[in-house]
Amino acid sequence: MNDFPLMAADRVIMAALEEDVGTGDITTLSTVASDTCATARLVAKSPLRLAGLDGFMRVFALLAPGDELTWEVFKRDGDDLEAGEKILAVSGNARTLLTGERVALNLLGKLSSVATITAAWSRQLKSTDTKLIDTRKTTPGLRALEKYAVRIGGGANHRAGLFDGVLIKENHIRAAGSIAKAVAGARSYAPHTVNIEVEVTDLGELEEAYRAGANAVLLDNMDDAMLERAVQRYGGKITLEASGNMSEERLAGVAATGVDLISAGALTHSAPCVDLSFLFEQD
Amino acid sequence: MNDFPLMAADRVIMAALEEDVGTGDITTLSTVASDTCATARLVAKSPLRLAGLDGFMRVFALLAPGDELTWEVFKRDGDDLEAGEKILAVSGNARTLLTGERVALNLLGKLSSVATITAAWSRQLKSTDTKLIDTRKTTPGLRALEKYAVRIGGGANHRAGLFDGVLIKENHIRAAGSIAKAVAGARSYAPHTVNIEVEVTDLGELEEAYRAGANAVLLDNMDDAMLERAVQRYGGKITLEASGNMSEERLAGVAATGVDLISAGALTHSAPCVDLSFLFEQD
Amino acid sequence: MNDFPLMAADRVIMAALEEDVGTGDITTLSTVASDTCATARLVAKSPLRLAGLDGFMRVFALLAPGDELTWEVFKRDGDDLEAGEKILAVSGNARTLLTGERVALNLLGKLSSVATITAAWSRQLKSTDTKLIDTRKTTPGLRALEKYAVRIGGGANHRAGLFDGVLIKENHIRAAGSIAKAVAGARSYAPHTVNIEVEVTDLGELEEAYRAGANAVLLDNMDDAMLERAVQRYGGKITLEASGNMSEERLAGVAATGVDLISAGALTHSAPCVDLSFLFEQD
Amino acid sequence: MNDFPLMAADRVIMAALEEDVGTGDITTLSTVASDTCATARLVAKSPLRLAGLDGFMRVFALLAPGDELTWEVFKRDGDDLEAGEKILAVSGNARTLLTGERVALNLLGKLSSVATITAAWSRQLKSTDTKLIDTRKTTPGLRALEKYAVRIGGGANHRAGLFDGVLIKENHIRAAGSIAKAVAGARSYAPHTVNIEVEVTDLGELEEAYRAGANAVLLDNMDDAMLERAVQRYGGKITLEASGNMSEERLAGVAATGVDLISAGALTHSAPCVDLSFLFEQD
Amino acid sequence: MNDFPLMAADRVIMAALEEDVGTGDITTLSTVASDTCATARLVAKSPLRLAGLDGFMRVFALLAPGDELTWEVFKRDGDDLEAGEKILAVSGNARTLLTGERVALNLLGKLSSVATITAAWSRQLKSTDTKLIDTRKTTPGLRALEKYAVRIGGGANHRAGLFDGVLIKENHIRAAGSIAKAVAGARSYAPHTVNIEVEVTDLGELEEAYRAGANAVLLDNMDDAMLERAVQRYGGKITLEASGNMSEERLAGVAATGVDLISAGALTHSAPCVDLSFLFEQD
Amino acid sequence: MNDFPLMAADRVIMAALEEDVGTGDITTLSTVASDTCATARLVAKSPLRLAGLDGFMRVFALLAPGDELTWEVFKRDGDDLEAGEKILAVSGNARTLLTGERVALNLLGKLSSVATITAAWSRQLKSTDTKLIDTRKTTPGLRALEKYAVRIGGGANHRAGLFDGVLIKENHIRAAGSIAKAVAGARSYAPHTVNIEVEVTDLGELEEAYRAGANAVLLDNMDDAMLERAVQRYGGKITLEASGNMSEERLAGVAATGVDLISAGALTHSAPCVDLSFLFEQD
Repeated sequence: MNDFPLMAADRVIMAALEEDVGTGDITTLSTVASDTCATARLVAKSPLRLAGLDGFMRVFALLAPGDELTWEVFKRDGDDLEAGEKILAVSGNARTLLTGERVALNLLGKLSSVATITAAWSRQLKSTDTKLIDTRKTTPGLRALEKYAVRIGGGANHRAGLFDGVLIKENHIRAAGSIAKAVAGARSYAPHTVNIEVEVTDLGELEEAYRAGANAVLLDNMDDAMLERAVQRYGGKITLEASGNMSEERLAGVAATGVDLISAGALTHSAPCVDLSFLFEQD
Repeated sequence: MNDFPLMAADRVIMAALEEDVGTGDITTLSTVASDTCATARLVAKSPLRLAGLDGFMRVFALLAPGDELTWEVFKRDGDDLEAGEKILAVSGNARTLLTGERVALNLLGKLSSVATITAAWSRQLKSTDTKLIDTRKTTPGLRALEKYAVRIGGGANHRAGLFDGVLIKENHIRAAGSIAKAVAGARSYAPHTVNIEVEVTDLGELEEAYRAGANAVLLDNMDDAMLERAVQRYGGKITLEASGNMSEERLAGVAATGVDLISAGALTHSAPCVDLSFLFEQD
Repeated sequence: MNDFPLMAADRVIMAALEEDVGTGDITTLSTVASDTCATARLVAKSPLRLAGLDGFMRVFALLAPGDELTWEVFKRDGDDLEAGEKILAVSGNARTLLTGERVALNLLGKLSSVATITAAWSRQLKSTDTKLIDTRKTTPGLRALEKYAVRIGGGANHRAGLFDGVLIKENHIRAAGSIAKAVAGARSYAPHTVNIEVEVTDLGELEEAYRAGANAVLLDNMDDAMLERAVQRYGGKITLEASGNMSEERLAGVAATGVDLISAGALTHSAPCVDLSFLFEQD
Repeated sequence: MNDFPLMAADRVIMAALEEDVGTGDITTLSTVASDTCATARLVAKSPLRLAGLDGFMRVFALLAPGDELTWEVFKRDGDDLEAGEKILAVSGNARTLLTGERVALNLLGKLSSVATITAAWSRQLKSTDTKLIDTRKTTPGLRALEKYAVRIGGGANHRAGLFDGVLIKENHIRAAGSIAKAVAGARSYAPHTVNIEVEVTDLGELEEAYRAGANAVLLDNMDDAMLERAVQRYGGKITLEASGNMSEERLAGVAATGVDLISAGALTHSAPCVDLSFLFEQD
Repeated sequence: MNDFPLMAADRVIMAALEEDVGTGDITTLSTVASDTCATARLVAKSPLRLAGLDGFMRVFALLAPGDELTWEVFKRDGDDLEAGEKILAVSGNARTLLTGERVALNLLGKLSSVATITAAWSRQLKSTDTKLIDTRKTTPGLRALEKYAVRIGGGANHRAGLFDGVLIKENHIRAAGSIAKAVAGARSYAPHTVNIEVEVTDLGELEEAYRAGANAVLLDNMDDAMLERAVQRYGGKITLEASGNMSEERLAGVAATGVDLISAGALTHSAPCVDLSFLFEQD
Repeated sequence: MNDFPLMAADRVIMAALEEDVGTGDITTLSTVASDTCATARLVAKSPLRLAGLDGFMRVFALLAPGDELTWEVFKRDGDDLEAGEKILAVSGNARTLLTGERVALNLLGKLSSVATITAAWSRQLKSTDTKLIDTRKTTPGLRALEKYAVRIGGGANHRAGLFDGVLIKENHIRAAGSIAKAVAGARSYAPHTVNIEVEVTDLGELEEAYRAGANAVLLDNMDDAMLERAVQRYGGKITLEASGNMSEERLAGVAATGVDLISAGALTHSAPCVDLSFLFEQD
């Protein structure tokens, strides 16, 4: 059992097969004899950090449970590839390969895109102690897979959802009456296994959160100067997460302030699409 | 019943709620009293073509079936918005609004992003007879929704999947023996309600496809000069679809060749993310 | 991967097992020891065109995933059998065979019935160019399977559903304002991969549909004389589908008019039931 | 809550909508404006016993949960209709009515067909004490609905599946060693709330079953003379079910032998298809 | 195929894995390398009647379909174990074993608890003809599994649900008008394969039920003296089930009255929890 | 939206209805006319802390979506009731009330049992700062509901599953090499929103965990003397959870040691069953 979220992947793959194959791949069924064999190679067509090979292979297993495919795998998740590098070769029933191709490529492409941008951004933090983390701004239905891709890209994960961490935002504070009351409410209700983080917009709120006993603060949309002051006063006393308006260019500067974490929705909602091809070999 | 794919949306929303809310929104449950009421406004924070409002509203209905929310809706799908424009206001149980917020924004953001890039690209084709269409390079599980967003963006749809159109590619041709044999096989097998399209890479293959009786050809990765020649010889005789390496800048030039259709995976896999906010009003 | 719709079959089989086996086959569990082995033969008890063997065998695989059954298969889908001919023999756990028997027979019987009537009707069209096709008048939940059986019977398929072909009927025309407007609306909205067919009841409407650029017309409930006139004027210019009140006796006459297609709901909703038996061998 | 199996119906309807509507009714969406209203009438086009109106109406509710349809219902399940009689009228969104029409008609047609043949056969037993019952030879996935239709037709139900009655057949007897042992095994294992029936082919086996304490016997494929002898010896002592090769013509004769029950697979697998129409009113 | 309800178990196990593993076992994934192997032993820590081993093993198969685990099984369902006895040893991927452990133990523990109390109570009836049976007071979602455990414990099952037996209670009688009318209604509606039982609170009602032709009566909350009188008058004529306020201590006395059946909800809702451990071996 | 886990409840209720109602409540359908109305009262028959009323009411909504029931609710979740106290009255269709009764009672009974034992145990901790929490030893499929019941009982929740907290046990430590390495691995992998807890069996391990930077320790099976020493040395520095062999009697003593948390599987796996009745009113 590896880190790849297989149960989540299976649900996504079944849905993707149903929406793509539906009542049948009429092109393949009408042009390729049922006993035709073929070999195809999966190749990177742009530089990328590979993520999602287990999902790629699983597509064909779920599409045609009885078929025997032979896999020769040259790369694995986490490898950095240049354009042109071979990832794997697969031999077997030609219909199965042709019908599953698009779903498999869409999935692998999506996950490798997330891993690739995360790897690029992570390189900006290489010699620092600051961690790059994701957010809940993920594609509906793909969260577990995209968070896996972030890890493969060298990033770490923020909470998986609303259930495995407390993050108190402005509306919660207003409803509770104050930061102190919100933190106390959460401490009393939430399992002791989760931390309490508060989103703050200035150092006054940060001080309140710190006094209330929060474990972490999300420093929302602060410039580097303000982040630096936050680190000077609270570094080491409370986990400091910088968030908002991040870009690859800005990362090194933010990390230089000394914050513990930088979170960025861009890792999952704005990853440029990598390019892959699945080429059938000539006989 | 409008054009929005409600059954597909419901499946996506349920999956998204399960992955985000999971065992419970511990922040909201512990900081906001169960009978708190609130009003929130949905606002565009970047220019965008709006797509997916039905889905946005459906999130809250599926999250809390018994809750009564009051909606005041100012914009609708297809509207072009400037940053800062209000989309809707909603009043009701504060917990419901807070817990559903992220899933609703992720969905609306995704669909509006696709509609926005499609609208931008479509503007390049405004005074032409060429249609902009999507591909099967969609996000796993979101195809019906993304294709809806393409329509809202002013584009049209290529086939929905492998089941509602024949598209014969190189591997099918090789397996069948020739373009003529592949087209004949498809004609015999596929319902008469679907067309037969052949992917070709040069004018020789185009001629073969035309003689074989194909209804359309996908002109793969051709430069504008070659597209022009294709149109000169086959325009009006067979539907001509240009595909491969499309960009917003290149569109006008491609359309000027006179092709019937331009398809682009970028509409669904590379749409820049639009920005939305869901702000709670001060009391 | 063959033409049999495995994913659709799996859904039907799981539903059928749940409704038949439910909380347990109390007869078999109480009278047959868990380690009893048996061999059973599947035999045709009426003449039939066989369709659905993959589904028959799949029932037992889904009922008892761990059991090893040994199959000896003498016939395959598409074979024409006389009463008394053996189809297959299977050896394995007696409980599994007894519990799955009825579901397996009901499925195979249903599909073979459809294939058998289709084969009989198809024989009437043998030396003609007219194709026999099915309709959407299928059993709820079984469409993909029944359409497979029609193909096995030598027929072809009309569209699979509302999504893979445009068929404009009287109500659509009235809502759109005219045949021309309806066809234009469909042309603009539907993928270029699907055709546009119009249901017409007389030659005037046929002319309108032809001028509007429809790809096909459904000639609804016309007598042979009118069909003949339609073919004389429009044959080769537009696909002509005769439909309504078809019977095996009438087919040759209709085909003699020269129409391209004859569609008949009877293939799926009125196929006479074929007879099969699943006999356990004496030790 | 009436006798109609709503949960089973919902599963069937959702599957039927998914297979028919799939990625969208492209004809209706492109030719009928989203705010068009219409009124349609459901009319019998052949004589029939009506069964399944709840299911017919439920199709539209599941297809478009938000739509308000206005129903005027003239007939109800169990009514006998002549060709031409109106069943109901419905007004509402024209797209919803057009898109749901075929699924609704297929379901109502299937169930009314079963009810109609059952009503016809039941009439042969009118002045007798013999009950007409169904079998497990039902359409995969539709058992609960078809058994409902049998009840509406005036028949009664045999067991619903393998779980709510013991029916010991030849293979069970052979595996158990004897009728006596099989009955004893079942008596010990099965809940006391279910009966034990044994399938027998001659009077010797009937005697064995009776002595073993079976509650009922299925008299398999016996002619009327043998059935009469069975009734003479065992009538009133054990429930007698005649089965095999039943036809409407033969029923009165079989009932005259005095058996308690006549079971016939034909009620569900060979019901002639009734005809219905769903006509839109002219404005 | 054995008696264990595999389809029901699979549903329960998938739900249990989803609620426990959810987005991932972050402890195991972060502390145990993906290729670590381990051997674990399952041991009884309290005396128990074992039930559910198939389910225990199935947890790991469903959690990690690709993993090969090696099982050495020392005991089987129905065995009585002392504290300290080994049940099985399993070797394989350490992550799989650690992640599936709790779900597997919760399931096996629950079923063995039910089997253990049933075995203890059954011993009180050892030399009698009275059977111990369960009720519908089972854990939501676990009925088929708990009823299996009752059988393993030496008990028998009452009806599986509302569908496989008629049990007429006070409210049904009141609605029908009388016991006689209720029994007649059920006789006419229910399949002949199910029996009719009536819940009665005194001998007058019992007499009514007997005259109405009921097959069984549930003697509700009667003391032993009244049960004895019921047996004297109706023993052998109608099945007599004693129910209400049963305890292990009271069983022998109730059985001594001669009733046929004793039913007790305690078997499923009040089984004391047995103790199991799943120990990893030292290298 | 209240704290009750509605989505989890709906899944449990649908499964419970399917297993109990199945192919139909043949008793009610045959003895109670479809338009019969009734009023029923839900009454506590043993002292209890009420938990799960939303689920109780939801059963009937899911069973018969169209039925209008009128509810008069006297008590709510969290109330302590004496035997005999009325909880609610409901009026509506008698069939619906009778068919849903058992599923509704089984669910409410289960949850109220958990709340009741939790309330009793919580009273032992009343004047202390020690919190009573649950474990993952819950009924398969019911975790979210049982954890809700624990909260209603005055307890708090341990982590919801393997995904929202790190709990390093002996096997993880052995695989990682040491407590320090295991904690470091978890710190690096797990979201910063979750805490890291280590299960320890003596003070040496506790010291190691503390030095490694764990947030909490689970003190496994320690006697009160050792717990006291743990509190003396580490109280206030690390969260201390006592676990293993807890009983209501022992709780006050354990709390007196000053530990922060006491966890007990007994709250969910050994809650004595409370008694409820659902009585129909006489007319």
